[in-house]
Amino acid sequence: MKDFADIPALMAEIGTAAKAAAAELAFAPADQRAQALTAAADAVWARRDEIIAANARDLDYGRDKGLSPAMMDRLALDEARIQGIVDGLRAVAAQDDPVGAVLSEWDRPTGLHIRRVRTPLGVIGVIYESRPNVTADAGALCLKSGNAVILRGGSESFHSSSLIHACLRDGLRAADLPETAIQLVPTRDRAAVGEMLTMTDTIDVIIPRGGKGLVGRVQAEARVPVFAHLEGICHIYVDADADPDKTARVILNAKTRRTGICGAAECLLVDRAWYDRNGATFIADLIAAGVEVRADDTLQAIPGTVPAKADDFGREFLDMIIAARVVDGVDGAIAHIRRYGSQHTDCILTENDATAARFFQRLDSAILMRNASTQFADGGEFGMGAEIGIATGKMHARGPVGAEQLTSFKYLVEGDGTIRA
Amino acid sequence: MKDFADIPALMAEIGTAAKAAAAELAFAPADQRAQALTAAADAVWARRDEIIAANARDLDYGRDKGLSPAMMDRLALDEARIQGIVDGLRAVAAQDDPVGAVLSEWDRPTGLHIRRVRTPLGVIGVIYESRPNVTADAGALCLKSGNAVILRGGSESFHSSSLIHACLRDGLRAADLPETAIQLVPTRDRAAVGEMLTMTDTIDVIIPRGGKGLVGRVQAEARVPVFAHLEGICHIYVDADADPDKTARVILNAKTRRTGICGAAECLLVDRAWYDRNGATFIADLIAAGVEVRADDTLQAIPGTVPAKADDFGREFLDMIIAARVVDGVDGAIAHIRRYGSQHTDCILTENDATAARFFQRLDSAILMRNASTQFADGGEFGMGAEIGIATGKMHARGPVGAEQLTSFKYLVEGDGTIRA
Repeated sequence: MKDFADIPALMAEIGTAAKAAAAELAFAPADQRAQALTAAADAVWARRDEIIAANARDLDYGRDKGLSPAMMDRLALDEARIQGIVDGLRAVAAQDDPVGAVLSEWDRPTGLHIRRVRTPLGVIGVIYESRPNVTADAGALCLKSGNAVILRGGSESFHSSSLIHACLRDGLRAADLPETAIQLVPTRDRAAVGEMLTMTDTIDVIIPRGGKGLVGRVQAEARVPVFAHLEGICHIYVDADADPDKTARVILNAKTRRTGICGAAECLLVDRAWYDRNGATFIADLIAAGVEVRADDTLQAIPGTVPAKADDFGREFLDMIIAARVVDGVDGAIAHIRRYGSQHTDCILTENDATAARFFQRLDSAILMRNASTQFADGGEFGMGAEIGIATGKMHARGPVGAEQLTSFKYLVEGDGTIRA
Repeated sequence: MKDFADIPALMAEIGTAAKAAAAELAFAPADQRAQALTAAADAVWARRDEIIAANARDLDYGRDKGLSPAMMDRLALDEARIQGIVDGLRAVAAQDDPVGAVLSEWDRPTGLHIRRVRTPLGVIGVIYESRPNVTADAGALCLKSGNAVILRGGSESFHSSSLIHACLRDGLRAADLPETAIQLVPTRDRAAVGEMLTMTDTIDVIIPRGGKGLVGRVQAEARVPVFAHLEGICHIYVDADADPDKTARVILNAKTRRTGICGAAECLLVDRAWYDRNGATFIADLIAAGVEVRADDTLQAIPGTVPAKADDFGREFLDMIIAARVVDGVDGAIAHIRRYGSQHTDCILTENDATAARFFQRLDSAILMRNASTQFADGGEFGMGAEIGIATGKMHARGPVGAEQLTSFKYLVEGDGTIRA
């Protein structure tokens, strides 16, 4: 029986078990891992009534805690949402398996043949907030990529996540894989999070999924590498050579399609020459669509805008609000984005190839776009299948993080009694 | 004039300058960066007398500090060694440029065209010990990969490194690149190292070059990502199906070619069945070559061996010493290496493909070899050109770290007014 009072000991035990499971998973065949996911999908569907009952307990807890309606909605599961979880598990099971792929190979004059092959990272820690479906999504992607995972869900979704985790374990058992390949921290004690952030011997990477508070804490405190983005302060720059129709269409979509996702546009930069020539009907369109446009001195001339405050630039609204200002050409846009951006996703609207190339070269956001909505910043839209998040670090995974990004590699070198001169 | 008394302020200033230089380097053309390296090579050769005079001051300092003969040798520069530095700079200049390469590209049904292109990492911090040539080698590789670099050399090589750094600056100036692209910390104060390890806003990765003490400190204290290996505890496993001639040749080379490098073999594992059948003439060969063989109970039967102590396994000797023991088959070898290895380089000697595949699959060292000397664990031998070191982490760079491994990537996404449904 585990001692839930001694959190360091509990977490160390979980870490050791995960590391042992990872060593097994590293060479478990692809079809065995896929079979576990399919069996888990079956279990989730078969046990949907149990999951809904557990979710009711979480909803009671959430009501007692006074969660906002938005948070209560994120927490709630019904049969349709459970169907979504099942579909997600099956989709990940059907994806190409990344493990063992030969990334490159070459021969050397010495006679050595060298291959670089993809391997799992090892043990992944996922720390998330209220959505219980992350338990299934994150567990599935980690298993797909041959990693063991330690899941630490939000305290609000404790019962729902536990039931979904039980179904994942059912799947592992059915495929004859170690059940400790996917573990859920079995306590709401927040000390468990602090432990995970420093378990450098057993956890290879931490992925936080949640708001800025959670991600910021993880980035500040983790001794383990972190795949994350703190904010998605996505800019759209309307260049002197932008096409008016495309501009109108892309801006409206980038801001309003969904305002709560990290790829939503938060700041509009308009070339001064363009504005003097064409005005900015796209701002009127945004206002007509219900967006609050916080404009600089120049753009305040447009009816319906409100004055921007200094801190509206470099701010992630995640709402029907956008900051807007005039800049001097692409270099003005680049300077603004370097100062205020978050290296997530930034977009240029232009028909001029040279200007686009300059924007692409001189900025170093994880994703740079041309004439396309920033809302495409998504692993699914990139064709990577499911994603566990978007990372803005320079190391390793960058941009959408799917199964392939949850891997590392090793070199396999073959000789024939070959010695070095 | 910089205030060398206020180390945090000094280092912050250096960091800010490096970040600004990195933004310029990110789009400096390949030939301009190569030109800087060629000009630096010319400057090193032209100023060789100055460098040798500066080195004489370092040697005086080293003698006063009572450095060992080995350390004094590492520190010393003569015309031949300066020629080596010049050749190294020219070789890096001539390598393929990694920046801007399209790593992959694809189209999406939405009409988006996505490219993944190689970018510099940004700012690299290199912390090293006595060898002054690292100033040139590390500076060159970082510039080749489009990165700004902050070099922090050993206090013993302070004057030599300063002169070599002046030549690198000559090269940058000749190529019209920012001189702050390659900076050398201008003080021996050790507090500068502590600052570098926590400069997360300005340094993207730290590379320690030196002994276990330095690397261990950096790994323990750094808040910035680190590319490094702590130890190279390289194993060679002689399988039941090993070829005797290849075995003898590879083992002798792996241990004795150079004992002080991280790819030198430190432990020999012999399959019990092989030993019962063939004995271990390769151990007699090692002893004849002057190697001290620290053997387990079984192998102590071989004349000239000495008894191994428990801590001889998992130990990096970097000397004419090797630990040796009998194991039960490839699974015994795998279990030993998992327990005692350092995930650097491990080798199997076998003619059996299935056994080799098992060894390759079930171990996760950065480099796994078959029938080849572990001394090949080297970027040059891999065909990567110069290397800055070997990394054993799971993130990003792993194995030999050359110019290509000093890069990151970004996604460039092009549409035609494309919006997300």
